Amino acid sequence: MEAILETKYALDTFYFLVSGALVMWMAAGFAMLEAGLVRSKNTAEILTKNISLFAVACIMYMLVGYNIMYPSEAVSAYWPGVSFLLGGDNVASEVLAQNADEWYDGSYYSGMADFFFQVVFVATAMSIVSGAVAERMKLWSFLLFAVVMTGFIYPLQGYWKWGGGFLDELGFSDFAGSGVVHLAGATAALAGVLLLGARKGKYGPDGQINPIPGANMPLATLGTFILWLGWFGFNGGSELIVSNVDEANAVALVFVNTNMAAAGGLVAAMMTARILFGKTDLTMVLNGALAGLVAITAEPLAPTPMIATVVGAVGGILVVFSILALDKIKIDDPVGAISVHGVVGMWGLIAVAITNPDATLKAQLIGLFTILGWVFVASSITWLVIKAIMGIRVSEEEEYEGVDLGECGLEAYPEFTGTKGSGL
Amino acid sequence: MEAILETKYALDTFYFLVSGALVMWMAAGFAMLEAGLVRSKNTAEILTKNISLFAVACIMYMLVGYNIMYPSEAVSAYWPGVSFLLGGDNVASEVLAQNADEWYDGSYYSGMADFFFQVVFVATAMSIVSGAVAERMKLWSFLLFAVVMTGFIYPLQGYWKWGGGFLDELGFSDFAGSGVVHLAGATAALAGVLLLGARKGKYGPDGQINPIPGANMPLATLGTFILWLGWFGFNGGSELIVSNVDEANAVALVFVNTNMAAAGGLVAAMMTARILFGKTDLTMVLNGALAGLVAITAEPLAPTPMIATVVGAVGGILVVFSILALDKIKIDDPVGAISVHGVVGMWGLIAVAITNPDATLKAQLIGLFTILGWVFVASSITWLVIKAIMGIRVSEEEEYEGVDLGECGLEAYPEFTGTKGSGL
Amino acid sequence: MEAILETKYALDTFYFLVSGALVMWMAAGFAMLEAGLVRSKNTAEILTKNISLFAVACIMYMLVGYNIMYPSEAVSAYWPGVSFLLGGDNVASEVLAQNADEWYDGSYYSGMADFFFQVVFVATAMSIVSGAVAERMKLWSFLLFAVVMTGFIYPLQGYWKWGGGFLDELGFSDFAGSGVVHLAGATAALAGVLLLGARKGKYGPDGQINPIPGANMPLATLGTFILWLGWFGFNGGSELIVSNVDEANAVALVFVNTNMAAAGGLVAAMMTARILFGKTDLTMVLNGALAGLVAITAEPLAPTPMIATVVGAVGGILVVFSILALDKIKIDDPVGAISVHGVVGMWGLIAVAITNPDATLKAQLIGLFTILGWVFVASSITWLVIKAIMGIRVSEEEEYEGVDLGECGLEAYPEFTGTKGSGL
Repeated sequence: MEAILETKYALDTFYFLVSGALVMWMAAGFAMLEAGLVRSKNTAEILTKNISLFAVACIMYMLVGYNIMYPSEAVSAYWPGVSFLLGGDNVASEVLAQNADEWYDGSYYSGMADFFFQVVFVATAMSIVSGAVAERMKLWSFLLFAVVMTGFIYPLQGYWKWGGGFLDELGFSDFAGSGVVHLAGATAALAGVLLLGARKGKYGPDGQINPIPGANMPLATLGTFILWLGWFGFNGGSELIVSNVDEANAVALVFVNTNMAAAGGLVAAMMTARILFGKTDLTMVLNGALAGLVAITAEPLAPTPMIATVVGAVGGILVVFSILALDKIKIDDPVGAISVHGVVGMWGLIAVAITNPDATLKAQLIGLFTILGWVFVASSITWLVIKAIMGIRVSEEEEYEGVDLGECGLEAYPEFTGTKGSGL
Repeated sequence: MEAILETKYALDTFYFLVSGALVMWMAAGFAMLEAGLVRSKNTAEILTKNISLFAVACIMYMLVGYNIMYPSEAVSAYWPGVSFLLGGDNVASEVLAQNADEWYDGSYYSGMADFFFQVVFVATAMSIVSGAVAERMKLWSFLLFAVVMTGFIYPLQGYWKWGGGFLDELGFSDFAGSGVVHLAGATAALAGVLLLGARKGKYGPDGQINPIPGANMPLATLGTFILWLGWFGFNGGSELIVSNVDEANAVALVFVNTNMAAAGGLVAAMMTARILFGKTDLTMVLNGALAGLVAITAEPLAPTPMIATVVGAVGGILVVFSILALDKIKIDDPVGAISVHGVVGMWGLIAVAITNPDATLKAQLIGLFTILGWVFVASSITWLVIKAIMGIRVSEEEEYEGVDLGECGLEAYPEFTGTKGSGL
Repeated sequence: MEAILETKYALDTFYFLVSGALVMWMAAGFAMLEAGLVRSKNTAEILTKNISLFAVACIMYMLVGYNIMYPSEAVSAYWPGVSFLLGGDNVASEVLAQNADEWYDGSYYSGMADFFFQVVFVATAMSIVSGAVAERMKLWSFLLFAVVMTGFIYPLQGYWKWGGGFLDELGFSDFAGSGVVHLAGATAALAGVLLLGARKGKYGPDGQINPIPGANMPLATLGTFILWLGWFGFNGGSELIVSNVDEANAVALVFVNTNMAAAGGLVAAMMTARILFGKTDLTMVLNGALAGLVAITAEPLAPTPMIATVVGAVGGILVVFSILALDKIKIDDPVGAISVHGVVGMWGLIAVAITNPDATLKAQLIGLFTILGWVFVASSITWLVIKAIMGIRVSEEEEYEGVDLGECGLEAYPEFTGTKGSGL
């Protein structure tokens, strides 16, 4: 018996590590997506933000975030307390020595694998922010926000749901994080964008909206494909266990539903864009796929693949109208992150009440507004403090010249933008 | 015993899901490869085609394709009948409840995992088409063809072999789809290209062939690397089971042979190009690697790694001459897809008769011509119907301006092609 | 019992294959990183080198390298003898039939999986070389060196450590290859660079150092993300076994430490660059992450995650100063490969003596200097012989025009470099 339990433990740990590696890969997806959707003069800086926020998230989550989100002994359902640094000890293996029978529930795998899976999630939430504030925010102000977001703001609301806090007790349902990850990230982004203001030239004095096309569509498409792939780890790994028949079937269904929701979102957004604009706008196609993925993330296990496709499709339609609506009210989000992760994240949370009979609309709405409220208030305060200390927006001149030269001291494509690129 | 069988079931399911995720990733590979090999003015449109065909393939295969290809009860060895939609039920887990002993054969894993693995294969076949018809075909005509191809044309011939139809009964051997996937995709592409005609300016009035260089070689190379990686899932997953010693050894051998065939194909094509042209043409190097992969796909298990290298190398030589030959007869295939997947796919099918003693040349040829004949006729009819309804080729003006602006309403690289790019 | 052992064998084999696939993916990472850091006129050629060296490495390692590095019966601890070609037989499965009990040690998995994992390592070592000699070395001279390096130079020092040779007997400790892979690759690169000389215009007559910016920062960033992802296979797979509780915990810890070292290296290099230059140089940020990864590779299991972060951070600081120092002494390394893999590789070997109580500084230094000495001498001789036969440096005119046209007969970005790019 023990040998079988050992093998299950090993399989679950390996499944967790592979899933985590796929989620880590999503950081590359966000980097490519955002680098493709900004102008060339701001590309090196957005790349710098994306890769460095990942490193900051890992360090902060190791130092404090993980212990806030998963406390060994919580102070209350609202506040977990702060235990100390992750010391490299491996809780699960200690449990193992004590009580081998518990393995059979499939409840155990390496604690380090759990940390690895969780740490790449917090990086995902933070990656959402960088796109929305692109082309005008100071690099180091952004990094300072990343420290607070990944060390404190994200882990606390994560504790409320996944750490066993009050939202979990209330019956709020969020399988892989339409709320805890995507809505949280988008809300922090929104708070930043409201303080930051729109890019120069985006909105004309007479109410016109000037399109600012992204510099590199293949990169944006590659980023979307990377995110799509990574999402199999994001949702598939969130089942947490694969080592028995029921769990294996569940993981497989999650893979299929995740894929179908992306497909549904893509096709719905493509058709919506074609009808609205008369052209098949690639950026809307990409955002449609991502919207489908965000929409299914709160509940990828309960629906059939057919229903999952519909959940994704609704997300795909929503995202197109949301992007247009945000522009109307002059909320300037260069990559559509607030629409994709925020608006569709909310849809994902609400959809759970439809697809999963165990969920209630009331609990879903409480969860939704708790995350929205907490992250918005905490982020706004953080952004304001950072603004007071060091400012959050680059100078007008730097914005005109491009933040690449000002912040990074180099150009992303020094040989390609000789004539047409300059002055945009 | 039951716990071991459960663990095996879980391991096989997980192996299948990981393999499927790698094959899904090949969609990104085709997108990057094709985006790199077309001109910048047609790049956004080829990206749109690649990512949206994946979504269309998933939806159509869920709705009808999977049930045609793997019918629960077939009408005949030629026609499976059409059962209904994939309802989210999980056949394997029902079997499990009934007869646990059968697990020991290793025959069972999650039915959903099987669907996931199969659905990414049909997308691969369809991805082959987009490259060959690039730079001149209407976007929505292409998508309509994708509906028919992935819902009907591909699944029927898939049934004949992998669903247990007459080709399988005949002894036709095609491990992972040199024929069922690659030749099928290339044949559909050929039918489209013949109706579509060459790009304007490709073939001069006096018989000269004008090279039209691709805009972005790093993308093309990235795409090739992605395909190479994904192919480990494509071939490695096609063993279907990994959970005992023989199967694990088989999967490992498939990984090694797949890799060696790619290496052999690359080196052979590189040398052939160097000898023929005096230069080491990168596009031939890339196509050589892909040719090696296609060649080994029909039988990556029987040969030793040394023989696999040779099978790949023959593919690599073939592909160079095939690309030159197709240009001579004015079949314009911007990315070489018909040569890589069609001509070398045929070589792969024939090579089985050499490397696998259980295969016969006769059965291989019957399979080859059945796939070629069925897909060519069915595709030609489909293309003709689409042509009659809505046309398949963009206007001359749109082709000159680039299909990006006409079809997608945006440019792939708006800042990079100021002077040299325009007017090409 | 036998069924459990079979399942463990299968799980370990699958884990090995997944790890190997991730390491294979690192080849794409090197290709993108190097293509992003050279000028556009030399991009197609560096891509050609990167993908073809992978193929050459696979073929040479199959033909001779693997048998030198892992001889079935060694002649001595210094020289293994050369047994013959890899015949496609599967040693592990033979052992299996003889002695099933030995499985319980977890010592066995498919021999083919082992070959697959090893062959992608030798390609990694070779990939390091291509970056350092970029923009001026002849393509086929480079490929000829790759033949010798991957068939002979690398395998012999690999035998000394991982094949059970004298360095292993001495207690030299190198978990996943800070020395055997990274330092070895960097040393071969250094030998090449010293013979090759700097790029034209890099160092002015009055001692000034002219920066030559890379053409495509998104590619360089993508390459870094790919390498970061692939490193989970590189280090995580080097534990060799995952199928019991202790091993699963070990693999999980290796994943976490690898990730934290990269994060530590990135943040340290970012801060160092910010302080030194006043700008947050993206290329230094990327090299910092890679330095962290190289530094932890020699011992990713012994330290806690906190210590791993510090080991990476030291690597991140080192790499910035090393890049500046090499430029001072006019060693022209366009991508910083010698600093990242060589200087930091040495730090990684030395750090083992600090983090792992079982290691001694003496043994680490003997290993370090043995690798450095052997690879430097053997590589220098090889480069000299190649220089005598066919030359190693392209003509001045070809260097000015770009090696893409001269070597590959095409341009990497034919439409993008109309004005600003030419003449750089």
